[in-house]
Amino acid sequence: MFTLAIHGGAGTLLRSAMTPEKEAAYLQALNDALDAGFQLLKKGGNALDAVQAAVITMEDSPLFNAGKGSVFTHTGMHEMDASIMDGRNRAAGAVAGVERVKNPVELARAIMEKTGHVMLSGTGALEFAKKAGLKLEDYDYFFNQLRYDQWTQVRNEDEFALDHNIQITEKKFGTVGAVALDRHGDLAAATSTGGMTNKRYGRVGDSPLIGCGTWADNSTCAISCTGHGEVFIRAVAAYDVHCLMEYKNMSLQQAMEEVTLRKLVAMNGEGGMIGVDASGNAALVFNSEGMYRGWRNEKGEEVAIYK
Amino acid sequence: MFTLAIHGGAGTLLRSAMTPEKEAAYLQALNDALDAGFQLLKKGGNALDAVQAAVITMEDSPLFNAGKGSVFTHTGMHEMDASIMDGRNRAAGAVAGVERVKNPVELARAIMEKTGHVMLSGTGALEFAKKAGLKLEDYDYFFNQLRYDQWTQVRNEDEFALDHNIQITEKKFGTVGAVALDRHGDLAAATSTGGMTNKRYGRVGDSPLIGCGTWADNSTCAISCTGHGEVFIRAVAAYDVHCLMEYKNMSLQQAMEEVTLRKLVAMNGEGGMIGVDASGNAALVFNSEGMYRGWRNEKGEEVAIYK
Repeated sequence: MFTLAIHGGAGTLLRSAMTPEKEAAYLQALNDALDAGFQLLKKGGNALDAVQAAVITMEDSPLFNAGKGSVFTHTGMHEMDASIMDGRNRAAGAVAGVERVKNPVELARAIMEKTGHVMLSGTGALEFAKKAGLKLEDYDYFFNQLRYDQWTQVRNEDEFALDHNIQITEKKFGTVGAVALDRHGDLAAATSTGGMTNKRYGRVGDSPLIGCGTWADNSTCAISCTGHGEVFIRAVAAYDVHCLMEYKNMSLQQAMEEVTLRKLVAMNGEGGMIGVDASGNAALVFNSEGMYRGWRNEKGEEVAIYK
Repeated sequence: MFTLAIHGGAGTLLRSAMTPEKEAAYLQALNDALDAGFQLLKKGGNALDAVQAAVITMEDSPLFNAGKGSVFTHTGMHEMDASIMDGRNRAAGAVAGVERVKNPVELARAIMEKTGHVMLSGTGALEFAKKAGLKLEDYDYFFNQLRYDQWTQVRNEDEFALDHNIQITEKKFGTVGAVALDRHGDLAAATSTGGMTNKRYGRVGDSPLIGCGTWADNSTCAISCTGHGEVFIRAVAAYDVHCLMEYKNMSLQQAMEEVTLRKLVAMNGEGGMIGVDASGNAALVFNSEGMYRGWRNEKGEEVAIYK
């Protein structure tokens, strides 16, 4: 059995703003990402490569808030976060607030494999990316008219009205992620994001935080989250799913519902998560209006946006 | 019942390098930190203020790797991390890689209370610190001959020998932290560090990561960790204690021993942690040669360094 599941963020366009053309483009992009990862799994490739390939496909699409489609920070830049985790040994890599890197998930992978560290940040992370030979892009690569327009709507907000800004952009939090089980029985997870529109002060959300936005352990599950990052951090959302499975013997679906539909809702934490367990079951759970998502294995597949 | 526990890092001087004079100075500094927090608890103050006061005392001492005593990064600077968490509502604040701030734990508190975010990083965090009116210091304030000498021993290592550097400085990882239960039955935790000697690339350890280095929830416990940060991240060490208590009904002591003496040891994660539960029991557990530590409540007190 091998399984791949992906998400392109719980911060979907409101149903009222979706057109048939836009919907078709999103569904196509999700299918492309599933194809990229699934082909590797089918050939016996490992879960780590599969989640990376799926995430890269979404990072390279302008439709999702990650890589090329990243939103604008308060200063008009693009600061990206990503993480990856290997279920075989809990090896993990993460990067916060990095600019210019074309595929932040590749940087997270390089950090995991080449540094002895788990997490690098900011200009130091960019310095390491250069040393590791990762592909960099210039400002123009990340420019996107839709994201720019979103940003100009909020960038002149009173600088102390940070909470207010979050409210305005709340439905726009976007993230991409993938989880996989490969033919060898190994799990992996990866998450990547451009963060929050008009982000300031080097804010870090849950996406690059191991245990919060990303988790993988062969004994339980692989998880990638998307949503209101601050609440996912305070809930240690991804690792909580692991603990409910390990300590309470819940199934993946039960544990993800407990965290997403009960605990996160009680903390006003809008969003969702995708997961795969060691038997290849996929689960995709969200408490928001929609979540760009898809899964595929030998038994079937699904790609969807709304409930 | 009210209880305070503190640590000044599991990266103690090796017993062979300790002198009676140095030992007396460390024990005095630990007592000073206990005094600062305990006086507040005695007067009915809240746990959050108590852990902050204890951590500030240690940040202001040159003996510990946090605040004034922070180690040197690869470029000869001081980049500090800190976090704080309120057990009443799981509110949390954290900062990674901030320079010049005299008391990073105060910055973590300000992030928790004033931004709507949990975690800020780098130059953005410094920008917010200025806006929040926190006290900044110049380079000279953080200069310390011992730390400088430690750094000069390793700064010229081959730039790719990152792992080797870590080995050399492994016994020097230092962190300070405090956990408390107040008279109102509320728990809080705080952690602060100057990071790793010769640190590069904006490396982030476990100290500013909620669930890894710091945790507080009135339903279970308050935890502050110290040790080989990368492993504590991959173990989600602090939140795992919470889960073992909540899901497996372990006591604080049992849960901390399970994580520190079994799980972390299996992952080669040297270090320790301190905790207080909702009944005011303190636990101080480490798998390293020593951990600067102390606790105090109405029943007793202890200050110690080695096993």
